[in-house]
Amino acid sequence: MKIFQHQLLLKEKRRGFHLITSEVLSAMPQIREIRSGICQVFIQHTSASLTINENADSTVRKDFETYFNKAVAENDKNFLHNYEGADDMPAHLKASLLGCSVVIPIISGKLALGIWQGIYLCEHRNNGGERNLIISIWGE
Amino acid sequence: MKIFQHQLLLKEKRRGFHLITSEVLSAMPQIREIRSGICQVFIQHTSASLTINENADSTVRKDFETYFNKAVAENDKNFLHNYEGADDMPAHLKASLLGCSVVIPIISGKLALGIWQGIYLCEHRNNGGERNLIISIWGE
Amino acid sequence: MKIFQHQLLLKEKRRGFHLITSEVLSAMPQIREIRSGICQVFIQHTSASLTINENADSTVRKDFETYFNKAVAENDKNFLHNYEGADDMPAHLKASLLGCSVVIPIISGKLALGIWQGIYLCEHRNNGGERNLIISIWGE
Repeated sequence: MKIFQHQLLLKEKRRGFHLITSEVLSAMPQIREIRSGICQVFIQHTSASLTINENADSTVRKDFETYFNKAVAENDKNFLHNYEGADDMPAHLKASLLGCSVVIPIISGKLALGIWQGIYLCEHRNNGGERNLIISIWGE
Repeated sequence: MKIFQHQLLLKEKRRGFHLITSEVLSAMPQIREIRSGICQVFIQHTSASLTINENADSTVRKDFETYFNKAVAENDKNFLHNYEGADDMPAHLKASLLGCSVVIPIISGKLALGIWQGIYLCEHRNNGGERNLIISIWGE
Repeated sequence: MKIFQHQLLLKEKRRGFHLITSEVLSAMPQIREIRSGICQVFIQHTSASLTINENADSTVRKDFETYFNKAVAENDKNFLHNYEGADDMPAHLKASLLGCSVVIPIISGKLALGIWQGIYLCEHRNNGGERNLIISIWGE
């Protein structure tokens, strides 16, 4: 078993849901060397998150933004943590609902994603800035 | 450290939450060979998901269906992605709220689940069809 | 590649969200021996969960409790599983929304958490009792 780790610094993206599968693959070319293994992608932030979902129709990603804005309302008067802006506490909550890592099998040198699956960066802040990911792969 | 991977094709299940722990164990008998390791189960779909929850009382799984149908309503007029049916966009959202993989320690040849924990297949479509899982284990 | 596993039994904590990063580090000193690897923390329960979020301002953790109590209401008349108390079925649902494990890269003998990230134990029951975690690390 071998293990490889790389950092992937993503340029600032606008608030919403963004496909980053190709950026992950480019940042970790060693996936091709793994016959049988695992890839984990981890985001080192608490107001952006990672998930896996539909990779084809961009309206799915727009509906994700619509849904999560309704499910986690801004300006909830009961929130105590509000001095970093109306989008801040909702961003923390969305980040934990979706999670800060994805774990994907590697088979025959490729991520074993389903045909419709892609990796999303979920940017929950209005001005989130750059986002730092750690990609780890292990296997043989 | 060794790694094993198997595919597990699940027959179509009706919409709702289903215990699949025994199917996972049957599909990966090599778990018994691992003294210390990890098992990951990954679903290659974006409208069904995996989670771990209560394995005894079937009313828990019924209440999961009740809750998620209320938390992610069908026929939301704000959704743009609606041409695959009223259950489609909610299925994508539920899939990301619950997640597409579970990661479980292996200790002494067994999944180290708590006494009340079982693996759920969460079928979010009315007619989801067969579902394909990838089971990976690694350890020594 | 090496693998280490330890049990961490947490004393009963009150309902809410609690930082446990330092307890995890103390329970697994072998993290310091890993140059490149992964740490998984798994909770063996279905009414408490684990997540990663903001480690500095305790109001974030209070707002998590506020939010999840609103998002998963107690005494929902549609719930069938209600004989273990009003907090029980909501606890199962919160546990699956947040998840029962976190997976964190290890780089140069340290958990590669972002500067604001900490590990939360999410206690969803009024009297949850002790909680048992399994910590696994692997790498080289």
